[in-house]
Amino acid sequence: MGDMVGTPTVIVDVDVVDRNIAAMAAAMTAKGVALRPHAKTHKIVEIARKQIGAGATGLTVATIGEAEVFADAGIDDVFIAYPLWLTRSSAHRLAALAARIDVSFGIDSVEAAVAAGRLLGDAASNVEVVIELDSGHHRTGVRPDEVVAVANAATDAGLRVSGVFTFPGHSYGPDAQAAAAAQEAKTLRRAADLLTKAGFRVDVRSGGSTPSALLVDSDVVTESRPGVYVFGDAQQWELGRVSADDIALTVLATVVGRYDRPGDRRIVLDSGSKILGSDRPAWATGFARLIDYPDARVTALSEHHATVEFGENATLPARGSRIRVVPNHVCPVLNLVDDVAVVRGGLVVDRWRVAARGRNG
Amino acid sequence: MGDMVGTPTVIVDVDVVDRNIAAMAAAMTAKGVALRPHAKTHKIVEIARKQIGAGATGLTVATIGEAEVFADAGIDDVFIAYPLWLTRSSAHRLAALAARIDVSFGIDSVEAAVAAGRLLGDAASNVEVVIELDSGHHRTGVRPDEVVAVANAATDAGLRVSGVFTFPGHSYGPDAQAAAAAQEAKTLRRAADLLTKAGFRVDVRSGGSTPSALLVDSDVVTESRPGVYVFGDAQQWELGRVSADDIALTVLATVVGRYDRPGDRRIVLDSGSKILGSDRPAWATGFARLIDYPDARVTALSEHHATVEFGENATLPARGSRIRVVPNHVCPVLNLVDDVAVVRGGLVVDRWRVAARGRNG
Repeated sequence: MGDMVGTPTVIVDVDVVDRNIAAMAAAMTAKGVALRPHAKTHKIVEIARKQIGAGATGLTVATIGEAEVFADAGIDDVFIAYPLWLTRSSAHRLAALAARIDVSFGIDSVEAAVAAGRLLGDAASNVEVVIELDSGHHRTGVRPDEVVAVANAATDAGLRVSGVFTFPGHSYGPDAQAAAAAQEAKTLRRAADLLTKAGFRVDVRSGGSTPSALLVDSDVVTESRPGVYVFGDAQQWELGRVSADDIALTVLATVVGRYDRPGDRRIVLDSGSKILGSDRPAWATGFARLIDYPDARVTALSEHHATVEFGENATLPARGSRIRVVPNHVCPVLNLVDDVAVVRGGLVVDRWRVAARGRNG
Repeated sequence: MGDMVGTPTVIVDVDVVDRNIAAMAAAMTAKGVALRPHAKTHKIVEIARKQIGAGATGLTVATIGEAEVFADAGIDDVFIAYPLWLTRSSAHRLAALAARIDVSFGIDSVEAAVAAGRLLGDAASNVEVVIELDSGHHRTGVRPDEVVAVANAATDAGLRVSGVFTFPGHSYGPDAQAAAAAQEAKTLRRAADLLTKAGFRVDVRSGGSTPSALLVDSDVVTESRPGVYVFGDAQQWELGRVSADDIALTVLATVVGRYDRPGDRRIVLDSGSKILGSDRPAWATGFARLIDYPDARVTALSEHHATVEFGENATLPARGSRIRVVPNHVCPVLNLVDDVAVVRGGLVVDRWRVAARGRNG
């Protein structure tokens, strides 16, 4: 790509994106599980359209603002997988959205159901709510034994309950995937049974994360919501979920520093946390990975610098050379840039705007 | 601020900003050290103008793109404190900038000096270079004994060497400030002595970070480049550098989850890493702090969720209530939002655009 692209720049290989989208769609079709990809990963309209084109039933998003962007782009079925606490202004936006596309959102408390029903008023019957369950990640979500109370409150508030969902985020860890998928299924089944006994129809039993998606229990789960699979990242690579060939997004960086001394063999790249983000789980080997130098380790990251250490016998790349960096976690990267360079066969063929970047609420 | 501001939103208290700017300006004036604040912290034109108005000699930035934004806003003296590796296109931009304002930039190698001289051509004499030193942070920068070789290469390449700079980033740690300030002074003095002996005039001996700025050795250091002082953040609070009253920037967040069970007393806020960033040094007590709940701990952070744990006897805030969150590190926050709400006495009085957000190169 030479000097045509400045650094640091996010580079997306469209052929790998297409392959990842097709592979996940085929895997879910084979299992008979609907695919509703989480679009917070990419925030890009062109990619959302590819996912829908490959058979996704709709999109998952995290905020009303993201839903608005994709609705404007013609996506007509969006699930806001987040326990929204509505205000007068956000309820107004949600009602406007529900008047033009199919919208559902998450709740996980009686209080949120009551507030949503009151603020949505007549529009309440126009949106579906899905009750969030905690399947072991211990972030948001109720326990199965609390689900009927929330469903009753939602119904009383005029909302339509379509089912239950959970995010098995504890699948992000070495060898954690099978257990997380099993807990996901157990939690969804238990809550669905209780709701059914209480007289509710449970159409939606939604789960899924990229690490656990292929292990989804299709006897229980009706829909899966992986996000990261579309690009892959260093976390998925280090978890063994993807290989280096599956990684569609890298950050092109320049070697701005090179220090080759006995016991201190490092380079510094211009791809700091300003473009890689700072996510680093305890089990990760560093703050990012270099796709062409798998043994190098990104040992420090500041806003404008990534420090990369090399072993005793490695050849350090020259100053000024350009290196492809794989971010640990790809989602925050898309929230840092306004557009990405799209490549095919190593040539820049397009620019995609990150249309939902910064749509935080 | 009620429902007028959605959440999560970055809130800047302009009176506290003014106080922080005045205090640092007074401290540097008292020491006889020039103040050149790092504008990567705020990326906001209105704040840059306040800093210059309070006597700053110019701005520090990290990229050519940031320099262009502030030059467009009328700032006429900018130091790019970064070891730029120029390309044809960035050299062209740098030369254009140097034709309209005073520009200097960092180098830390013979190779970078040669490349810059060649690419800048006739424009080389129009920019100043400042040689970066490693004073113990071990990121970029040469050792003092390497500085003359770099200065000679720069001069041979047609560049004007104005002095030396260092970033004592190892001041970011408990009780690390005095040692870092001493190493900064020792390193700058040693390099300046060697350059003077080699026949160079050393006008600039630039150092400074927010934790170490007030300890700067004015016998050696001619200019200081703190950035974070303008806002403060949880890192500075936990290092004892600022008190809660000095913190000018918070993220307004909504309690979207509340789980009050024996042994598991937590709330979840909508201020995830999408707005707080993920920076967390090992010595920090969590991923952020709550200004009104100093004993609470932010124990987990994902893109759209901040999990806050409370002790046994604390009263958990209600769902839907609004909480002010202090980010660990304020700089990445400004790189995540397009604008900030400006408040005075608790009322929103303005919106400032984060004009240099995303100007990564």
